[in-house]
Amino acid sequence: MIFTSHMPQALAEARAAAQRGEVPVGAVLIGPDGRIAGAHGNRTRELSDPTAHAEILAIRAGCAAAGSQRLPGYSLWVTLEPCAMCAAAISAARIETLYYGAADPRMGGVAHGARVFDHPQCHHRPQVYDGIGADASRDLLQDFFAQRR
Amino acid sequence: MIFTSHMPQALAEARAAAQRGEVPVGAVLIGPDGRIAGAHGNRTRELSDPTAHAEILAIRAGCAAAGSQRLPGYSLWVTLEPCAMCAAAISAARIETLYYGAADPRMGGVAHGARVFDHPQCHHRPQVYDGIGADASRDLLQDFFAQRR
Repeated sequence: MIFTSHMPQALAEARAAAQRGEVPVGAVLIGPDGRIAGAHGNRTRELSDPTAHAEILAIRAGCAAAGSQRLPGYSLWVTLEPCAMCAAAISAARIETLYYGAADPRMGGVAHGARVFDHPQCHHRPQVYDGIGADASRDLLQDFFAQRR
Repeated sequence: MIFTSHMPQALAEARAAAQRGEVPVGAVLIGPDGRIAGAHGNRTRELSDPTAHAEILAIRAGCAAAGSQRLPGYSLWVTLEPCAMCAAAISAARIETLYYGAADPRMGGVAHGARVFDHPQCHHRPQVYDGIGADASRDLLQDFFAQRR
């Protein structure tokens, strides 16, 4: 199987989120067969749900479709470093590989803050690849917040 | 207003979860008026959703009812130390006070592991009171796992 970057789709989800007035973060879940198992953007405002981050929506949809709490062999592409909540959900879902774009020193929980995967208590640590499409992700976020100032 | 412990209701939710074959953890959300805004137990198996912890279900229900991503002035009673995912969701929802029962050295993310509230990046740290009804909570969990061995 040829390795394909799914960051363009994740960025498209982030752009769609911005158009809905949501913080522009997007996530794409890829199944073990290489197919897209879910593509989501933030919907915290629309759903009045602080847990409705792109990653959580993708994981919940993927698990519901698979009929399982666990997604072994799946990968998740996210435009921004996941927060502690999403990192812990990624671990709980046993996602195999996490690809993310821009670092998030303010809210991130993978390489910053809680560093959820870096504790002995973390039962499952995905392989992590960062910095993919980071400039595009950062530009989207900066434009979004600049327009709201 | 007289201070009332809502841990008995949280323990009742945990017992109900065990009867459904779910890890027995319960959570009760209390609104600023002192009324119960939600009472939930784990449903991760039933819903095939690794994010369906008692705390997350309570927060999602409370936010949906309030029409807001944030629950200032609310308190959350949980039978077990929240994991990193739930702790981060509690922070994101701006819950004012967290009361919990048993410590969870293996999966907890408040006093163990990721210690989600103990980082400069944590934008909102609730007041935390632990050890409330801890013995009853621990007994429930030990009985549940003993029966499954």
